[in-house]
Amino acid sequence: MSITVVGSIAYDAVHTPFGSRERMLGGAATHFSLAASLFGTVRPVGPVGGDFADREMAVLRTRGTIVDDVQVVPDGTTFFWAGRYGWDLNSRDTLDTELGVFGEFEPQLSDAARNCDVLFLANIQPTLQASVLDQCTNPRWVGLDSMNFWIDSARRELVEVIERVDCVVLNDDEFRLLTGQASLAAAAREILALGPTAVIAKQGKYGAVLFTSEGFFALPAYPLETVIDPTGAGDAFAGGVAGYIAAQREREVDHTMLSLAMAYGTAVASFNVEEFGTERVARLTLDEVNGRVRDLHRMTQFPHPSPEETLA
Amino acid sequence: MSITVVGSIAYDAVHTPFGSRERMLGGAATHFSLAASLFGTVRPVGPVGGDFADREMAVLRTRGTIVDDVQVVPDGTTFFWAGRYGWDLNSRDTLDTELGVFGEFEPQLSDAARNCDVLFLANIQPTLQASVLDQCTNPRWVGLDSMNFWIDSARRELVEVIERVDCVVLNDDEFRLLTGQASLAAAAREILALGPTAVIAKQGKYGAVLFTSEGFFALPAYPLETVIDPTGAGDAFAGGVAGYIAAQREREVDHTMLSLAMAYGTAVASFNVEEFGTERVARLTLDEVNGRVRDLHRMTQFPHPSPEETLA
Repeated sequence: MSITVVGSIAYDAVHTPFGSRERMLGGAATHFSLAASLFGTVRPVGPVGGDFADREMAVLRTRGTIVDDVQVVPDGTTFFWAGRYGWDLNSRDTLDTELGVFGEFEPQLSDAARNCDVLFLANIQPTLQASVLDQCTNPRWVGLDSMNFWIDSARRELVEVIERVDCVVLNDDEFRLLTGQASLAAAAREILALGPTAVIAKQGKYGAVLFTSEGFFALPAYPLETVIDPTGAGDAFAGGVAGYIAAQREREVDHTMLSLAMAYGTAVASFNVEEFGTERVARLTLDEVNGRVRDLHRMTQFPHPSPEETLA
Repeated sequence: MSITVVGSIAYDAVHTPFGSRERMLGGAATHFSLAASLFGTVRPVGPVGGDFADREMAVLRTRGTIVDDVQVVPDGTTFFWAGRYGWDLNSRDTLDTELGVFGEFEPQLSDAARNCDVLFLANIQPTLQASVLDQCTNPRWVGLDSMNFWIDSARRELVEVIERVDCVVLNDDEFRLLTGQASLAAAAREILALGPTAVIAKQGKYGAVLFTSEGFFALPAYPLETVIDPTGAGDAFAGGVAGYIAAQREREVDHTMLSLAMAYGTAVASFNVEEFGTERVARLTLDEVNGRVRDLHRMTQFPHPSPEETLA
């Protein structure tokens, strides 16, 4: 039931129509870990600088997350990202990106991190994702995220890692960019042909969809009247998906399991966006998550058109 | 089981990455009627010019659609729209709009059209929608569509019609434009407070969502590898929804019925976009539609987290 995730641990400056945070804990591995820690033991792998405060490290330790693989570089500075969201939160401008210690990062996993059941390669340079995958002994399930920057600048390396993982989790548009296919279904078919058994496309406020050899599954986002800060929603979603899978222990990760895992990911992500940064998920309970998974189940039900009822 | 729809009957010039049509049958009332005629007797209300060909009138008559309320203005020209879609079909530019006979249209319904069970006010000037609603005797269910142009130029008139209908069917962004609410859930709450018992937001390739006093329902679009021409998909969706409701005769139109109606609308719309204009739906069968409704049911299933299985 142990989960290893490699990715950024960061300070974020975020401006939304509802307020601002000048320097809050962020990063893909952070949001993923907070979410996954609801389901199992998480080991985030990533570098921070000497400026990384004890207070933030304590948040990272939420629900027993083990920070032994967080590399502290005393004379470096933590990865920093600044962004501003538009009025409806659908667009965002990156105002600043400072790689800091991430520029020199070479992951070296502890034995415990290598022996994980579930491995998630969050959005970092594809060669580093490959290095982490090389170091892990035999994870039961491996997921991967990436972004347009790597698709443009390191496509070959990215495809080589994709060939080795079980599930690719990208944004809708990134699948199109990666494959050149206008149709998401066609893009997913191409990715499945590379080796992965599952493709999950994140669609932001519209939800997420799954493609496997068993078929197609779609799940809406949890409907919210107020979204405060969308930062990290995709990573929290991935953390919920991977966490749910880890909690299923030895069971085969099939289409059905992935669909329920997506409901857990969606529920956690919905809490993530209701406050800034990690604030809400840091105090989230599994009971609360279960409540929204049951809500999602109800919200997606419609009567089966039985043969007798079928219009003809 | 009779359905009246008022809206445009048009000639469309459409350019997509997959081809072009210089002058094909289109218009909201057309696409709606083709879809709804799978479920009941449809009477489209709208004007055409002397240039409207018998061949197009014959297509409009598909599956028994009654064209007695199509007003032929011999010395006028049929409404014309020309548009070009981008490579991924998500954006489109309007190249030309010629109102023609639509500029002087004053709907006068036949007695049969007035006595409809289900009335759909497709996208036309709100005062004309009100006039048609005034003429109908006592429809069991009334739906309404509109567009950004009327929201901007005739907001008060539009809101006055909205207050009198059962269900508002708009695009996602149009609900935000109409209410000024960034959150669709908040926008829907505002619209429901005006009088309608249901709000359906069309989300294009992402599907559609429903808000009623009973709750929220979301349905994905039917996954397609190839989309040829998205024109009229929203109208075909509305025709499927209204048609399904009409076929349910006396039954109360509640949240559950609307959710299955949306599945029928989604299925019909998915066929609509697989060929140009009305080409595919003109030869569509209810058996084919039923097949995709069953597919959609399967594609949205995930295991209910029962109390014993719930993670804790």
